[in-house]
Amino acid sequence: MTKHILLMDGPDAKGLIFNVTKVLYDNACNIISQDEYVSPDGQFIMRTEFEGEESLNTQKVLNDLRGLIPSEAINLRINPKKKKDVVILATKEHHCLAELLIRYNFDELDANILAVVSNYNTLQPFVSKFSIPFHYVTHEHKTREEHEEAILRTLEIYQPEYLVLAKYMRVLTPSFVAHYANRIVNIHHSFLPAFIGASPYKQAYDRGVKIIGATAHFVNNNLDEGPIIAQSVKDVDHNYSAADMAREGKDVEKMVLSQALKLVFNDRVFIHGNRTVIL
Amino acid sequence: MTKHILLMDGPDAKGLIFNVTKVLYDNACNIISQDEYVSPDGQFIMRTEFEGEESLNTQKVLNDLRGLIPSEAINLRINPKKKKDVVILATKEHHCLAELLIRYNFDELDANILAVVSNYNTLQPFVSKFSIPFHYVTHEHKTREEHEEAILRTLEIYQPEYLVLAKYMRVLTPSFVAHYANRIVNIHHSFLPAFIGASPYKQAYDRGVKIIGATAHFVNNNLDEGPIIAQSVKDVDHNYSAADMAREGKDVEKMVLSQALKLVFNDRVFIHGNRTVIL
Amino acid sequence: MTKHILLMDGPDAKGLIFNVTKVLYDNACNIISQDEYVSPDGQFIMRTEFEGEESLNTQKVLNDLRGLIPSEAINLRINPKKKKDVVILATKEHHCLAELLIRYNFDELDANILAVVSNYNTLQPFVSKFSIPFHYVTHEHKTREEHEEAILRTLEIYQPEYLVLAKYMRVLTPSFVAHYANRIVNIHHSFLPAFIGASPYKQAYDRGVKIIGATAHFVNNNLDEGPIIAQSVKDVDHNYSAADMAREGKDVEKMVLSQALKLVFNDRVFIHGNRTVIL
Amino acid sequence: MTKHILLMDGPDAKGLIFNVTKVLYDNACNIISQDEYVSPDGQFIMRTEFEGEESLNTQKVLNDLRGLIPSEAINLRINPKKKKDVVILATKEHHCLAELLIRYNFDELDANILAVVSNYNTLQPFVSKFSIPFHYVTHEHKTREEHEEAILRTLEIYQPEYLVLAKYMRVLTPSFVAHYANRIVNIHHSFLPAFIGASPYKQAYDRGVKIIGATAHFVNNNLDEGPIIAQSVKDVDHNYSAADMAREGKDVEKMVLSQALKLVFNDRVFIHGNRTVIL
Repeated sequence: MTKHILLMDGPDAKGLIFNVTKVLYDNACNIISQDEYVSPDGQFIMRTEFEGEESLNTQKVLNDLRGLIPSEAINLRINPKKKKDVVILATKEHHCLAELLIRYNFDELDANILAVVSNYNTLQPFVSKFSIPFHYVTHEHKTREEHEEAILRTLEIYQPEYLVLAKYMRVLTPSFVAHYANRIVNIHHSFLPAFIGASPYKQAYDRGVKIIGATAHFVNNNLDEGPIIAQSVKDVDHNYSAADMAREGKDVEKMVLSQALKLVFNDRVFIHGNRTVIL
Repeated sequence: MTKHILLMDGPDAKGLIFNVTKVLYDNACNIISQDEYVSPDGQFIMRTEFEGEESLNTQKVLNDLRGLIPSEAINLRINPKKKKDVVILATKEHHCLAELLIRYNFDELDANILAVVSNYNTLQPFVSKFSIPFHYVTHEHKTREEHEEAILRTLEIYQPEYLVLAKYMRVLTPSFVAHYANRIVNIHHSFLPAFIGASPYKQAYDRGVKIIGATAHFVNNNLDEGPIIAQSVKDVDHNYSAADMAREGKDVEKMVLSQALKLVFNDRVFIHGNRTVIL
Repeated sequence: MTKHILLMDGPDAKGLIFNVTKVLYDNACNIISQDEYVSPDGQFIMRTEFEGEESLNTQKVLNDLRGLIPSEAINLRINPKKKKDVVILATKEHHCLAELLIRYNFDELDANILAVVSNYNTLQPFVSKFSIPFHYVTHEHKTREEHEEAILRTLEIYQPEYLVLAKYMRVLTPSFVAHYANRIVNIHHSFLPAFIGASPYKQAYDRGVKIIGATAHFVNNNLDEGPIIAQSVKDVDHNYSAADMAREGKDVEKMVLSQALKLVFNDRVFIHGNRTVIL
Repeated sequence: MTKHILLMDGPDAKGLIFNVTKVLYDNACNIISQDEYVSPDGQFIMRTEFEGEESLNTQKVLNDLRGLIPSEAINLRINPKKKKDVVILATKEHHCLAELLIRYNFDELDANILAVVSNYNTLQPFVSKFSIPFHYVTHEHKTREEHEEAILRTLEIYQPEYLVLAKYMRVLTPSFVAHYANRIVNIHHSFLPAFIGASPYKQAYDRGVKIIGATAHFVNNNLDEGPIIAQSVKDVDHNYSAADMAREGKDVEKMVLSQALKLVFNDRVFIHGNRTVIL
């Protein structure tokens, strides 16, 4: 038996689950697990893991499904590509990048890191240890648009499915984001929506919070406002300076980014409006 | 539309999910959520929430299901009783009992507390505030068997579906447990299986742990070894004496017991071997 | 030997700790624990627990200290009153109030609850179980000022040292707050500074957060912006409606409020600017 | 001004804190922070951070302290070496080792990693990226004693102050441990004392726990029973196989080991009996 994954989302309708289970049953498949979610505004989202004979024709399964669920508003996908092609954008901080490179190096990332792009060359020596192309694309003497153009040209070489902003410290324009709609994952160093924007740990210190956090989210046109994938926190106290928070926060950041990417790369994250549904 | 719950568990077989979704579809029902689990040793467990017409005959649904799933090894239940009838056993400590009485008082417990039984009368004045019968069944001058007999006679008045041991500090005999197999929930004041038995906080202190915990579990014949429902923890440090741990641990205990009972009373907890499956 | 507590805060200066330890040594006292904090802007804060002979004259210790530390900018207090006198303000929700009443009932609160004041009479039957005066001070047909005047008149009967807002759902005016500067503790049902203001769980749902929280803080003139005492969080996912978050959040709220009050009532919380220092 | 650290532990006696503050005051030093702990059985432990003039003679400070505190039972140390010399022992798993190498590479470890020693050569290619000597000391065809002898000979080259067992999967003999008494830190992949010994995740799965954990501890002669430095946990549910727990547990292990080492290398961890005191 071979394992397959079926992803499905679109407007809710009667019989969707029944039709899926019927097609799988008729194709001699066995459901291993099935998770679904229906949003209050009527979006149906389902993720099904099933086993079929070695000889199973998944295109036929898809056709059978489409026969019973003709609405084109409903997306149906079987067996999305396993290892996503990814380019990482970074600036000077290493902790998130290093975490991802280590996982990639030991085949634990569920993704191929095709390249690292940075507006500084600080991290080049480190990245070179892992035999991954490093592109230094400085923003100096460039307008924001020129800089993004230069990055986009670099990305075109690799055609990544996802961009990961591993502490990439520049705001992206809507035009840039549009090239990778719903395919850019960022790690923000605060418990969003608290402390949007620059220097969140400084903001956190000034506010005297007792917990700091980090948020992995998709990037949309509004800074730090895209759909949240994962969040995590850590207790702090009055002894923490803003610098202490920043240093300790790095561990939270790298772990929550890894956790979010694991979910995204395993096709467990669906975007619905400004929220994520994780199945 | 009316909401219903279908619970199902037994040996896994082909087509179980399909047959359920088919029956629900044929009865014009709409699945709201469906969670299932198949254990490595082949136990199928499923919890389905669905909506049907006001006129839906759930007995017919059950009959239809039984028609397609004839194996008697598979349990099928629709709409288990909503408010479980419960008796609480306590000793002298109030924190878990009070938490449950407060929730019951404000109709947040998903259960009817029929009575409180205790081997001390310490908590009688408190329980009386809530107009709940309090039975003082002392263990003094009684053998263990005589004491349990006395408790059983008291329980017979109430015919509870579940017993909750809210810091009831006496070990129950297998004979007693057999009367309420899989229907006794205990709170143990340690992160099981660490610190089984008496004085777990003293044990925790002696071992120098940096985290303490509490465990809510079903009671079976081996002390502190029944299926675990919920666990929770709290950081401690070298400044905590065993007494400090005991005091601070009470908050963990009462919250984890409440959380476990919420799951149990909402028919979300299935027992399989020595493990719980929570859907 | 008798245990004593010395609290001290003011502008940092050379020899403060030395002078304190010298006076205690000269008075044959033994330091049990001593915690101090110096803020980046030079505020010195220290909490010392020490033991002395039964015959120790703490007024003499205070005089000795004042002799060596003459600056009036430095506050020195020995043995603040143990059980603080407290009035609780509530509205309709019971969970925080009940948690405090239970702890008070079993002598675990480190405070005397003198009365409960509410702008609704919903909780009166519950409060009456605990033989605590309940004052129903409706806001209907009153201006905000008139309503606060009525509450202040009620408070005057009790002369509380602290007010606890146990889900009191009305904004207090600066004039009211000034009567109890740094002596009002509020529980806000969000992880401040996220979701300031009304309906934080609705805001949290709309933002699609994966963690909700609660914040206990002192009240100052800006709504939800006073010094934070304690915060706590809970994981949520896409299945949580705003109502689910509100319901589950109650457990976080009541526990974090209890935790904060324990610190405040044990004289462990110092306010410095908009931050708390907890020793 | 220069910052210094004073460490002190031994039997409690009257005036210890006073004498320290007096010496520091007399030497024109300013205490930045001072934490102390007195155990129930009378062990006094204190960590003091203080500032002194550039010209401060710390040997004189030590002499002055010794003059006032003559008991040789009391250890006094000023300014322990900042970067500890460390050798890491590993087997085949990379996650803890990689975490430490990354931190070392970016100068965030508070230690010098002098070498990695492993009973397998699996991790050699990875370690070589960081220009750190890798010693493959196989246990094959050797008695336990012969193997440990071979490791000890390798360690003699480096004279490390601490050994870190980064998932080193062999039990050490008392004779080996005696060479590095209180200087070996191990990461155990369970929430000790639960699941001592082999295959703790398999044990955790079989017991049906809802939380898994990891424990960093000093190694003494009894397997998994040395003083605990740090512990951390992660929620799991019935969907986790033992293999899932092992995979997810790795993140907990590497973070808790890093956290423990940070404390140890910063001279914040004192051992008293079978417990640690962390100041």
